[in-house]
Amino acid sequence: MKIGTVTGSVWATRKAACLQGQTFLVVRTGDEELVAADQVGAGPGDRVLLATGTVASRYCMDAPVDAAVVAIVDVKERQ
Amino acid sequence: MKIGTVTGSVWATRKAACLQGQTFLVVRTGDEELVAADQVGAGPGDRVLLATGTVASRYCMDAPVDAAVVAIVDVKERQ
Amino acid sequence: MKIGTVTGSVWATRKAACLQGQTFLVVRTGDEELVAADQVGAGPGDRVLLATGTVASRYCMDAPVDAAVVAIVDVKERQ
Amino acid sequence: MKIGTVTGSVWATRKAACLQGQTFLVVRTGDEELVAADQVGAGPGDRVLLATGTVASRYCMDAPVDAAVVAIVDVKERQ
Amino acid sequence: MKIGTVTGSVWATRKAACLQGQTFLVVRTGDEELVAADQVGAGPGDRVLLATGTVASRYCMDAPVDAAVVAIVDVKERQ
Repeated sequence: MKIGTVTGSVWATRKAACLQGQTFLVVRTGDEELVAADQVGAGPGDRVLLATGTVASRYCMDAPVDAAVVAIVDVKERQ
Repeated sequence: MKIGTVTGSVWATRKAACLQGQTFLVVRTGDEELVAADQVGAGPGDRVLLATGTVASRYCMDAPVDAAVVAIVDVKERQ
Repeated sequence: MKIGTVTGSVWATRKAACLQGQTFLVVRTGDEELVAADQVGAGPGDRVLLATGTVASRYCMDAPVDAAVVAIVDVKERQ
Repeated sequence: MKIGTVTGSVWATRKAACLQGQTFLVVRTGDEELVAADQVGAGPGDRVLLATGTVASRYCMDAPVDAAVVAIVDVKERQ
Repeated sequence: MKIGTVTGSVWATRKAACLQGQTFLVVRTGDEELVAADQVGAGPGDRVLLATGTVASRYCMDAPVDAAVVAIVDVKERQ
């Protein structure tokens, strides 16, 4: 997974029917910006783990999303 | 998902049989250009969410496409 | 999908058994070069749409390929 | 797979329910940093093989992870 | 697929149980270095086709690998 920071959110009224009810967060990871479905309850400024690809879709009940927040990072330890 | 902007479209007569009837949009995301199937009804200049990979194919009834427009962005909020 | 241009082909006698009979084209897309299975009948100089990943494999009867030509581009319109 | 070096670990209390009990390592591969589930028992400084994508999820009993440590490298021979 | 050159191999005693018996080659493709499972019998210096992702895993009997050598290139023709 990638670690990213939640920087915003996205609103869309015209979308795939099966995306109804999904929350979309903007997540910055390195110098890339992705939009991820969120079911963990992350908010602005949170550091999160992003799963991408089919994995994310399966986690979101097969919705057509390719990125999902799967955890909010408490601590990242350097060892 | 990535956020991109619709900049054009692509026409192809010789193609996989199962691609008949699909609309292909050119979408610019950052400095990359992708061609995505569209079933949401996006048009030139629209900002869209792109799902890629197997997820896109499944959303397009298992057609051999690896990118699909799944939403038209109304608002992208910075928080 | 990515848009690329066919620049050559690849021959391989030692290969996965299930690759027998596949045609492999070299396709340049941006500054990347990929080898893609072709069942559409593309030739040198053609502009093509490439599907990648599991999608490509499924389109090629589950052969172990991760890129396939799925269409030959007639027109790319800028709008 | 990519070869990387374990540089730390990540702790998260708010996460997908199915991630309970997973160990998350920070792995540096080239100039990229990924977080990977570990079931092999790797530790700080270990050189590891990373599998990514759906493959990693399947290896981790379909947990929503897209990277997993699948081996600890003993020797990398140049030939 | 990507074209790469075999530059070495990797040995690992601690690994996923289902990786027993797999051969791991180091393959350089452009400026990236990947480790790929090999069932075709490639050796140092060989130019090979690499399939990546779920496709590679399926080809290797669902082992947790995300890259596999699927062919040894005889000729790459420029047209």
